Amino acid sequence: MGNAEVPLHASERIDDLLTNDLKIIQSDEVFSFSLDAVLLGRFCYTPPRGRIMDLCTGNGVIPLLLSTRTKAKVVGIEIQERLADMAHRNVVMNKLEEQIQIVHGDLKQASSQFGHGNFDVVTVNPPYLRVQGGEQNINEHVAAARHEVFCTLEDVVRTSSQLVRAGGRVAMVHRPSRLVEIFCAMRDYKLEPKRIRFVHPRAGEEANMVLIEAHKDGKPELRTMPPLLVYKNKTEYCDELMELYYGKHDGASPINVT
Amino acid sequence: MGNAEVPLHASERIDDLLTNDLKIIQSDEVFSFSLDAVLLGRFCYTPPRGRIMDLCTGNGVIPLLLSTRTKAKVVGIEIQERLADMAHRNVVMNKLEEQIQIVHGDLKQASSQFGHGNFDVVTVNPPYLRVQGGEQNINEHVAAARHEVFCTLEDVVRTSSQLVRAGGRVAMVHRPSRLVEIFCAMRDYKLEPKRIRFVHPRAGEEANMVLIEAHKDGKPELRTMPPLLVYKNKTEYCDELMELYYGKHDGASPINVT
Repeated sequence: MGNAEVPLHASERIDDLLTNDLKIIQSDEVFSFSLDAVLLGRFCYTPPRGRIMDLCTGNGVIPLLLSTRTKAKVVGIEIQERLADMAHRNVVMNKLEEQIQIVHGDLKQASSQFGHGNFDVVTVNPPYLRVQGGEQNINEHVAAARHEVFCTLEDVVRTSSQLVRAGGRVAMVHRPSRLVEIFCAMRDYKLEPKRIRFVHPRAGEEANMVLIEAHKDGKPELRTMPPLLVYKNKTEYCDELMELYYGKHDGASPINVT
Repeated sequence: MGNAEVPLHASERIDDLLTNDLKIIQSDEVFSFSLDAVLLGRFCYTPPRGRIMDLCTGNGVIPLLLSTRTKAKVVGIEIQERLADMAHRNVVMNKLEEQIQIVHGDLKQASSQFGHGNFDVVTVNPPYLRVQGGEQNINEHVAAARHEVFCTLEDVVRTSSQLVRAGGRVAMVHRPSRLVEIFCAMRDYKLEPKRIRFVHPRAGEEANMVLIEAHKDGKPELRTMPPLLVYKNKTEYCDELMELYYGKHDGASPINVT
């Protein structure tokens, strides 16, 4: 298929997404995707057709990855104009305009724009950290991706619940430290957690990431999948991660594990 | 120290607890402890001194195990008279009457008997299954240990919260399928889950057990410990489990992994 030409702005570079010839525009100053997004893009259920919403889409990495797994239409919402523009150029560069639509907007208004219950799946890799006084000495783009500047966990859960149809699924990646809050918020908004998977950097270490799939109006019954270990030693990925991410590859990685 | 003579009833046998020369009376018809209790007895925090309450104590296996880790006084409550009697004989047989007290009673009345906030730690290995119509064709003792005949999950959480002091800890073992319900109930009763560990029968399999430690009035922040794998192949325990349970041992086991 090849890629289309798109303009690059200062600090931006084009990386290889390492699957289906996808390319992605990134910027360390503005937004670079991380392992979290890759794992969510693999973990979530995808219907063969239908509609998927990706909240907090950033540079559109999750919609791009989902395009390799489904023919469903994907909408990505991003509140930061600079990032929404980057995501849109990523769609154009990969010639995916027919499948993926990027919307610059606030997820808190998404249900008035897209209606209630019109999506089969909602995915979201939200900011993980509560806003706290001090230590905001990173730039505004990076701060908004990491901290709950524009939306709280409750906003994300409420909006996901509004957008997804009854029986549809919401998939989220987050920090395990907030799992209790996530479960309770999901229950409050009729999203029943049905499947979780913890990600541990190495064997013998605590989890630093959790993948959660909830069903709208689902019956209580949670499955805890086998843990995913990222590294098998100081620098090499575990085999499962290699397969999941690269197919089979030499292991050099453009992504950060935080 | 040796053991004291106690009477055995029909169907009862004496097993070795495999630690500190402890012995335990069991009965397949009435109550036999399982891996769940052993793991809870190791997982929970124990203060060097103070007071520990074990709810749903069964034949007293958890108080017996705790006596190897702490000088704290331990109370075990059991609603089934036959089991409370077995637990009491276990205390006598192991000459632990100074440290362990077994009470025949209903945990739902425990806070009127023992007051509020008088324990440093509460442990509980409650029945895992909701009561449902049908399939009650097991005997009453086994049914009550498995099914919520005498107490629900909410009863257990409420009572634990009443008995434990502010800042004290509640440790529970349960099925991961009910984790959402457990977290939400704990939050409702001001027990904040702080540490969890999932138990998987083998690598690559879903978890079938979860250990949870909550702090009364604690600050939200959950830690997810490395997963515990039970078996390394069809019949042999993993090294960590061997050490945890046996010290070092040949692996033949009196316990069932359900």
